[in-house]
Amino acid sequence: MNILLINGPNLNLLGTREPEIYGNKTLIDIENELCKIAKEKKTNLECFQSNHEGEIVDKIQESIKDIQGILINAGAFTHTSISIRDALIGSEIPFVELHISNIFSREDFRKKSFLTDKAIGIISGFGLSSYSLSLYGIIEYLKTKE
Amino acid sequence: MNILLINGPNLNLLGTREPEIYGNKTLIDIENELCKIAKEKKTNLECFQSNHEGEIVDKIQESIKDIQGILINAGAFTHTSISIRDALIGSEIPFVELHISNIFSREDFRKKSFLTDKAIGIISGFGLSSYSLSLYGIIEYLKTKE
Amino acid sequence: MNILLINGPNLNLLGTREPEIYGNKTLIDIENELCKIAKEKKTNLECFQSNHEGEIVDKIQESIKDIQGILINAGAFTHTSISIRDALIGSEIPFVELHISNIFSREDFRKKSFLTDKAIGIISGFGLSSYSLSLYGIIEYLKTKE
Amino acid sequence: MNILLINGPNLNLLGTREPEIYGNKTLIDIENELCKIAKEKKTNLECFQSNHEGEIVDKIQESIKDIQGILINAGAFTHTSISIRDALIGSEIPFVELHISNIFSREDFRKKSFLTDKAIGIISGFGLSSYSLSLYGIIEYLKTKE
Amino acid sequence: MNILLINGPNLNLLGTREPEIYGNKTLIDIENELCKIAKEKKTNLECFQSNHEGEIVDKIQESIKDIQGILINAGAFTHTSISIRDALIGSEIPFVELHISNIFSREDFRKKSFLTDKAIGIISGFGLSSYSLSLYGIIEYLKTKE
Amino acid sequence: MNILLINGPNLNLLGTREPEIYGNKTLIDIENELCKIAKEKKTNLECFQSNHEGEIVDKIQESIKDIQGILINAGAFTHTSISIRDALIGSEIPFVELHISNIFSREDFRKKSFLTDKAIGIISGFGLSSYSLSLYGIIEYLKTKE
Amino acid sequence: MNILLINGPNLNLLGTREPEIYGNKTLIDIENELCKIAKEKKTNLECFQSNHEGEIVDKIQESIKDIQGILINAGAFTHTSISIRDALIGSEIPFVELHISNIFSREDFRKKSFLTDKAIGIISGFGLSSYSLSLYGIIEYLKTKE
Amino acid sequence: MNILLINGPNLNLLGTREPEIYGNKTLIDIENELCKIAKEKKTNLECFQSNHEGEIVDKIQESIKDIQGILINAGAFTHTSISIRDALIGSEIPFVELHISNIFSREDFRKKSFLTDKAIGIISGFGLSSYSLSLYGIIEYLKTKE
Amino acid sequence: MNILLINGPNLNLLGTREPEIYGNKTLIDIENELCKIAKEKKTNLECFQSNHEGEIVDKIQESIKDIQGILINAGAFTHTSISIRDALIGSEIPFVELHISNIFSREDFRKKSFLTDKAIGIISGFGLSSYSLSLYGIIEYLKTKE
Amino acid sequence: MNILLINGPNLNLLGTREPEIYGNKTLIDIENELCKIAKEKKTNLECFQSNHEGEIVDKIQESIKDIQGILINAGAFTHTSISIRDALIGSEIPFVELHISNIFSREDFRKKSFLTDKAIGIISGFGLSSYSLSLYGIIEYLKTKE
Amino acid sequence: MNILLINGPNLNLLGTREPEIYGNKTLIDIENELCKIAKEKKTNLECFQSNHEGEIVDKIQESIKDIQGILINAGAFTHTSISIRDALIGSEIPFVELHISNIFSREDFRKKSFLTDKAIGIISGFGLSSYSLSLYGIIEYLKTKE
Amino acid sequence: MNILLINGPNLNLLGTREPEIYGNKTLIDIENELCKIAKEKKTNLECFQSNHEGEIVDKIQESIKDIQGILINAGAFTHTSISIRDALIGSEIPFVELHISNIFSREDFRKKSFLTDKAIGIISGFGLSSYSLSLYGIIEYLKTKE
Repeated sequence: MNILLINGPNLNLLGTREPEIYGNKTLIDIENELCKIAKEKKTNLECFQSNHEGEIVDKIQESIKDIQGILINAGAFTHTSISIRDALIGSEIPFVELHISNIFSREDFRKKSFLTDKAIGIISGFGLSSYSLSLYGIIEYLKTKE
Repeated sequence: MNILLINGPNLNLLGTREPEIYGNKTLIDIENELCKIAKEKKTNLECFQSNHEGEIVDKIQESIKDIQGILINAGAFTHTSISIRDALIGSEIPFVELHISNIFSREDFRKKSFLTDKAIGIISGFGLSSYSLSLYGIIEYLKTKE
Repeated sequence: MNILLINGPNLNLLGTREPEIYGNKTLIDIENELCKIAKEKKTNLECFQSNHEGEIVDKIQESIKDIQGILINAGAFTHTSISIRDALIGSEIPFVELHISNIFSREDFRKKSFLTDKAIGIISGFGLSSYSLSLYGIIEYLKTKE
Repeated sequence: MNILLINGPNLNLLGTREPEIYGNKTLIDIENELCKIAKEKKTNLECFQSNHEGEIVDKIQESIKDIQGILINAGAFTHTSISIRDALIGSEIPFVELHISNIFSREDFRKKSFLTDKAIGIISGFGLSSYSLSLYGIIEYLKTKE
Repeated sequence: MNILLINGPNLNLLGTREPEIYGNKTLIDIENELCKIAKEKKTNLECFQSNHEGEIVDKIQESIKDIQGILINAGAFTHTSISIRDALIGSEIPFVELHISNIFSREDFRKKSFLTDKAIGIISGFGLSSYSLSLYGIIEYLKTKE
Repeated sequence: MNILLINGPNLNLLGTREPEIYGNKTLIDIENELCKIAKEKKTNLECFQSNHEGEIVDKIQESIKDIQGILINAGAFTHTSISIRDALIGSEIPFVELHISNIFSREDFRKKSFLTDKAIGIISGFGLSSYSLSLYGIIEYLKTKE
Repeated sequence: MNILLINGPNLNLLGTREPEIYGNKTLIDIENELCKIAKEKKTNLECFQSNHEGEIVDKIQESIKDIQGILINAGAFTHTSISIRDALIGSEIPFVELHISNIFSREDFRKKSFLTDKAIGIISGFGLSSYSLSLYGIIEYLKTKE
Repeated sequence: MNILLINGPNLNLLGTREPEIYGNKTLIDIENELCKIAKEKKTNLECFQSNHEGEIVDKIQESIKDIQGILINAGAFTHTSISIRDALIGSEIPFVELHISNIFSREDFRKKSFLTDKAIGIISGFGLSSYSLSLYGIIEYLKTKE
Repeated sequence: MNILLINGPNLNLLGTREPEIYGNKTLIDIENELCKIAKEKKTNLECFQSNHEGEIVDKIQESIKDIQGILINAGAFTHTSISIRDALIGSEIPFVELHISNIFSREDFRKKSFLTDKAIGIISGFGLSSYSLSLYGIIEYLKTKE
Repeated sequence: MNILLINGPNLNLLGTREPEIYGNKTLIDIENELCKIAKEKKTNLECFQSNHEGEIVDKIQESIKDIQGILINAGAFTHTSISIRDALIGSEIPFVELHISNIFSREDFRKKSFLTDKAIGIISGFGLSSYSLSLYGIIEYLKTKE
Repeated sequence: MNILLINGPNLNLLGTREPEIYGNKTLIDIENELCKIAKEKKTNLECFQSNHEGEIVDKIQESIKDIQGILINAGAFTHTSISIRDALIGSEIPFVELHISNIFSREDFRKKSFLTDKAIGIISGFGLSSYSLSLYGIIEYLKTKE
Repeated sequence: MNILLINGPNLNLLGTREPEIYGNKTLIDIENELCKIAKEKKTNLECFQSNHEGEIVDKIQESIKDIQGILINAGAFTHTSISIRDALIGSEIPFVELHISNIFSREDFRKKSFLTDKAIGIISGFGLSSYSLSLYGIIEYLKTKE
């Protein structure tokens, strides 16, 4: 079972900015931890980050053959990219939408998501734990579909 | 560590209606499974269900002394009850908002939640797994606050 | 054939307040007249009234086994209760939404109903005759489904 | 007592198109059945159908002297014709607004009606039974006004 | 100088319905009075009324050659007919929009007019005097354009 | 019969700015012409202009005893002054709202008027003729009230 | 003169939670103080609190015979309960709507009240003094109606 | 293969008004050219124009038996006629919605179309070429359905 | 303790117009009564009325040194004057917003207030008693701040 | 005559995904067919596809010198990219907006296009034929401009 | 070259209130500094402040002959005064709209400006530097127009 | 002091397109002029332009260490890019939002900016002078922060 973790714009700075909010873990730390959890669950996890909408679309298209589930923290693209939505729908790969912070208690424009209604599930607000909860969630989901 | 699980209106029928959507597990089955997980995590889980908004408010008020975290699937009250919102805020107990289905891909009026912006996190759409993911999430959260 | 008539909040005062608008018939008078009509149509009619949203939800849940059709004048809950909506949908019992007055010529907030799009039919504005018309309507409907 | 039944655009095709939805009865069948019911109730029923808004306005104006009640299924004109609304108000004849289907569970633009707030009552969603229920309703109404 | 007066739906009933609001003058009385005023001003006035939107469009199209100004009380069509708007614009004949009552103190849907922004002027609320004021207005307007 | 003409802000510049739009007549020219018409109609016309909302309110209050009708071109205050609206209503003097240009074909914020629904009539778009038409209109109106 | 004070959901916790905002007085303290004031004013004050919408509706219905005025701090129900609105209107008892905090400087959804337009007066934002001001207000009101 | 071309209100004036915008071709010129193209494509084209909404509805109803495809430039009715929409849906004949000008760069009210979501395709803005493109489009469409 | 009472436009006419609504007391009567109450409470009350927004702003600015609390019935300026809002905020003097009538049961535009969210409290609908209740309220408030 | 065909994000997958909807033709097949048609019409067609908004902007900028017309199926960027809109306007090259599916019968957010009001024409809903119809349309357009 | 600086309501208090936000400079200090800059740029600067909308309108009207450019910080009037807008447009004097604070990060009602779309430029948020930047801006602008 | 100037999509074409609007200066000309001004002010200016949202985000992230202030003309991205907003906020570098034209007098969708509420200041509408005014503004701002 291959799972792809996609992180959108500005998430490459995790752990280096505003540590009082986001903690000291860098994106690489998080990815490493998730890989360990994945291994325990006998799952393969691939990690990808980009600030470029087009690169995320390309990546999703390339995943059609090998990936069974996607975890996506699309960051700002959550609220603006129909293109990523279309790529995800077109790929027919089940995906989980995740957010570190609770997007519903921030600016109004963060309440609209182009991904939500097509996601198998949404996890928002658990800090960095949102990543591991999402991983548990997609694995659970894929098991019921086997 | 004491955690309270609150299920709102109509969730007492889980497992007896529309099994093709909600599966065959009854609410009691789910509660039992969650209690086991809680035990493993050395946590105490109390379960409560009501179709009456007022009873849920009463329950939250009574929990102020003994409960450290709340998991709430408020069902229809999610979208209509400011009273439960106020009780939760007043109690100052951290809570997770959870939904079995993806509320963002249903009727428009289910997209507005009176709980979301005050929840520590939201989990929606993972079927019955939303319950266990929420439990993991609140435990994780409470550990970081110790 | 068993039919359930549900009257929501404040309808227990029918006939005792504002007789110039609602006439002198009490709710019991109305219920008695409807029972007679039901009998003529070889139908059994059960009557229920409550000012408590939770009790109406409980009642609908209890009706799942024995009731084939519901007549509901949900009063104020028409416009605020997703919980009753969910109970009605969950019960899979066909129902008629009825109103004594024409809800479309009153305050704006009475124009939104959480029941309407799921009702088999709506009857509004015929005064107390709305009750008997609804009874005829549901019987007619149930006959075509036999 | 003279009652006028008005059917608006496209209702002349009843029974010839989409029989799985609208049944096999033609508009003439329906009109004949209603005339029988009217007769039993010692009422005279006149029937009129037009695809032309102007003709319906003309008809209402001509009815001022002889007609005591109107049943109107204005079809698409329900949502667009202020002209028919004005004719009905101007005529001072009480009228019932009726719809075969439940207009509240169709396209959004069918939820606005230019007739509703001036109708004595609304009946929607009972299939062809909406016609007979309307007839009962207007007769009941006219009796209380005598 | 030829001027055309167009009256829309239900205005043929002027003077016969609701005399306490609209007075006892029939449409013919009004038309006759206006013709007199027109004559004094050395203007020719033609009068036309229809309950049919299509007939009003036809009439406007036929007026292109002979008519220099139009007075239109489009009644209910004011708020619904883009077709009459297009005919008036297409004809390139200057027109005055007039209303007997003050349309801004009635139902909300009467506040939107499809004619207003293309009219040379609007007169509303002066009772039957709206007709003569409109006639004075268009004559004044046409004089300044000579 | 005493009539008061009120002109609001910036109308004191009439005839001195943008003559291609507003013509060469100054406000004083217009006032003089209107006085002549008033005299012919055996009416007394008083004229008042101010750029200050408060002064217009003061003026209306002072008019309560002596004035039977008001013509008001409130200019920009039409769209912003509830205070003038209240003064007019409080005075119980019938008034005509007038505009030189067609306010419905200009910026959106000019479409809302705080005076319209309380005016006996509205005249808009006839250029400087709007003044004389308004005078005719109010005189006609006051005659019918005698 | 009998007056009823109704406190809605979560107000039973006054004085025990967030004392820095709401002070140290419990609901019972407040009720006792008000009773003293009432006594001085030769008025009888009855006090009632519930977290259950249905119980508040029941209470209002029961008050129809004996109560001449109601003070209601409906808490969260202010913004969601049409049922309480209907009970108050149906009871024909004059009532004052009161709030401890200024509801207009809180969340947007607290700005809509289903009670406001039917209240004889509104008092909001004076802290616990809102209660005594309301009592003075209703007594004053009832005196003028005697 | 029989195709019907419907032109709505005011399109009968094509070629006679505003030639700088619409060119010098009359509606008859256009219809003739389209008939030639149809012939080449071994298709029969029938042409119909009316300023009357009701006549267009009648025409569509009469076409049910013989017509396989409809090209409709409904003009102003595009934005106001639910009646034509219902006739087209009821007829089950596939249709193309066409416009000479780009309706999306004109007045706001021209952006709403009651036909668009039911059309097989939309062509807007190509001047008179919109007609021939629509004809090619419907023929192409009907071929794929054979 | 010095308190300033500000009355906005048209309130100078109190007692002289519409006595059936506002009673026979003039503004001076009310001011005198309030001064008496103030004296009893050992408070100094200054009274000010103006129909001019600018004068009210000037007055508030001049009060910064000597005034500890403001009672303001801004009348129509409540809904339109950001300038008065800014003056009040800038002055840092606590103020009570008061209205004689219940502004929430009047025209829609009276529901928006530019003062409300900055007032320490709002009192609306108690007739002339709104003035004395406001005075009690501000004195109570200032006492708790001492 | 040089024409540029631009395809936006996810359109590179045409023919490989969801063949039941989009058919078996790949984007290259379509491009080849269009090139043939172009050749017959003595036109040169260049084809370009990208998932990257920036690359499409770059491409449009580079086309300013050599391209006389653009066909653009901007896919998801239709609804989100003001940047492509600005590039097209800046280039002053006439363009046709095309869509394979009928964007007006899909999700609401697909109804807003940032290109539509600046396109010379729009073609939507004809399946893959939308491409050839667009090509015919732009050639026809360019001929009339020669 | 004569330039006029207009400051609206409450700006006369600059430097005396809330120095932590607005600094210690009074309006006179600012005006003096600007005059120096103007002098260096060989420009004459006149300064004007008023809390009265009408006085600002009067001032703009009087400036028509002598002033070539206006700098206006209209304060609260920015959002409410169509009257000042009309005076500025009528004067045909180019003007810069300036704000000390960033009006886009304050209350929602401060985001609407009646001046913005007619200003040659807007400067907002630079603290007191907004004044000097505006002066540079208007001088630069007037130079390009010479 | 290092300042970064960012120009968004299509601004690389400045001076080559529509010279009547934007003048003949190319982006390089502008950048050179700004560098000179910067030098005089003893500031270092770096210039960057891209049509790619992702590249602008990358650039901002890279600037965190060395840059003290940013001038950004984000062009079309102003209205669509939450990603650039997040990068700017995350960088904690103060920035000025600038526009050549007055964005408030163009299309409605240009009135919403995702940058405005976080900018230290906004400058819009001064043509190419917007660049130099922004530079003066940020330098002034940075000086006050030293």
